[in-house]
Amino acid sequence: MFFKNKPKIISSATVAGPKECAGLVGRYVDYALEDDMFSESTFERAERKMLLYSIRRSLEKAELKGADVLISGDLLNQIISASFAARETGIPYLGIYGACSTMSEGLLLASVLTDGGYAKNAVAATGSHFSSAERQYRYPLELGCTRPPQSQWTVTGAGSCVVSREGKGPCITCGTVGRVVDYGVSDVNNMGAAMAPAASKVILAHLHDTGRKPGYYDLILTGDLGILGSRIVKDLLWEKGTDVFPNHDDCGAMVYARAEDEFQGGSGAGCSASVFGSYILHEMSAGRLNKVLFVATGALLSTVSSGQGETIPCIAHAVAVENEPS
Amino acid sequence: MFFKNKPKIISSATVAGPKECAGLVGRYVDYALEDDMFSESTFERAERKMLLYSIRRSLEKAELKGADVLISGDLLNQIISASFAARETGIPYLGIYGACSTMSEGLLLASVLTDGGYAKNAVAATGSHFSSAERQYRYPLELGCTRPPQSQWTVTGAGSCVVSREGKGPCITCGTVGRVVDYGVSDVNNMGAAMAPAASKVILAHLHDTGRKPGYYDLILTGDLGILGSRIVKDLLWEKGTDVFPNHDDCGAMVYARAEDEFQGGSGAGCSASVFGSYILHEMSAGRLNKVLFVATGALLSTVSSGQGETIPCIAHAVAVENEPS
Repeated sequence: MFFKNKPKIISSATVAGPKECAGLVGRYVDYALEDDMFSESTFERAERKMLLYSIRRSLEKAELKGADVLISGDLLNQIISASFAARETGIPYLGIYGACSTMSEGLLLASVLTDGGYAKNAVAATGSHFSSAERQYRYPLELGCTRPPQSQWTVTGAGSCVVSREGKGPCITCGTVGRVVDYGVSDVNNMGAAMAPAASKVILAHLHDTGRKPGYYDLILTGDLGILGSRIVKDLLWEKGTDVFPNHDDCGAMVYARAEDEFQGGSGAGCSASVFGSYILHEMSAGRLNKVLFVATGALLSTVSSGQGETIPCIAHAVAVENEPS
Repeated sequence: MFFKNKPKIISSATVAGPKECAGLVGRYVDYALEDDMFSESTFERAERKMLLYSIRRSLEKAELKGADVLISGDLLNQIISASFAARETGIPYLGIYGACSTMSEGLLLASVLTDGGYAKNAVAATGSHFSSAERQYRYPLELGCTRPPQSQWTVTGAGSCVVSREGKGPCITCGTVGRVVDYGVSDVNNMGAAMAPAASKVILAHLHDTGRKPGYYDLILTGDLGILGSRIVKDLLWEKGTDVFPNHDDCGAMVYARAEDEFQGGSGAGCSASVFGSYILHEMSAGRLNKVLFVATGALLSTVSSGQGETIPCIAHAVAVENEPS
């Protein structure tokens, strides 16, 4: 999909938890939480408040009082964080689900709606919370289960981008909608390995459709493959004759200061949303990055599907974000 | 949102369970199930198979081997029916979540993508299964809980529409994205009452934005408000000076032959999908209906949000489907 009218990311806002702010995003987020409960009584309410904060702050920064449409989703059952946040904003709302790929799906749809003239502006937002995700997908935190070394740590954070045809900011020039890819991985603690094939396929499809070489981009940024998954995606692309070793990185691999508890790095919809919305857009506005291919990745499993012995279907969407030549 | 290039619903396919086929849709569906397990071992697999069948059959009827994009979602946690069905088709996939409003959200996005030239054709599909929904949202079926009289019955069925700029079929001329509306209803057995305000608001917004009178449409069709909810939406609109008594009906109120077990009628994403995709499109192709406003409605709760004492946020999107004047 090519966007002729150059929809732009005119503002973004992010919020992240204390563990995350000890790492890369700490210097760039709009709100660094000291308490990951965000003064709320449940993890789910804290997650919702982060998402709502990031949406409101991104609109404020764009000097807008509302938007034509909000495109949002999250990891919780029935995407309650997004729906309840949408209720508070009163913005016309399209709920999406793409697990951790939500941020690229949201940016793609926001681009389509604004580029096609169906909306003046559109907000794409998502987030996640370690504790709400952990107790929904894995075990009650109180159990204190040991985590295997191939596991990742769900990022407590949220990010929101306002996309508009008017205004200033990096352009979304084109994008590629991914297919569901399933290489038969059924280890729910090894999401990076499960998602890497989906990421490599959509990157290959994107480069093929646009006729671009991997070197065209300053950075090919995957969502939350983590350290292991990031290595796998580089190898898979290398096998296909595409070398992304010089310019590939991964939000999950970047987000934490040290890989100890969190082993392979960060994951969750809030991982790519907070890293892209803070650090990456900051580097783009400073001109240190000019062409970024943002490929958030999602694992589309549920506890029921895994319980019924299914493998993990995965998806990734590619969004090309480029500074206009000055 | 107005669609200048007249995207058309060039084909549709539906499948429904035995209880549903005893009612309205029995004569119109592509596949009437004799066994609601669809020869599968779990309810979830049966639901997925129905959805996959309807997607494949709608492509077959449109004489297509694939499509540019599939937009789908369902009621299960992490929309596993849609994601696993997408894996089988291999079509580029955008997951959405709008609970029972999924069919109108899907048709709106399919219209945007095809009208704007981002895709040649797009498939919008959804479905639900009584037994998988019941055990996820309410109680294990084996408990044999008594159902209160204001409750509805989740439809076992699925529907898929192929939208394209080329070809023949009723046009999607315009649509209105809804806001999340919450009137404070917290009774999870009274979805009709919870969703009616969202439906009435989006109908009013649609009529206001388009300058159309309610009588413009042969039928204003809500998704799954049921008998009680359908009465509420008519009253709410009447209070605002909009009379839809002559031309309003509701898929949930129409779907079952008799309201006994199912009390207020049908619900679920498969309700509006199977009724719209079979009976309504059949009546449109026969010329007995020419202008239909399709307003599927969704209740955006989860068991966690209800358990934490939250009320039910609801949404509805309006899609105008019109035969071209001959």
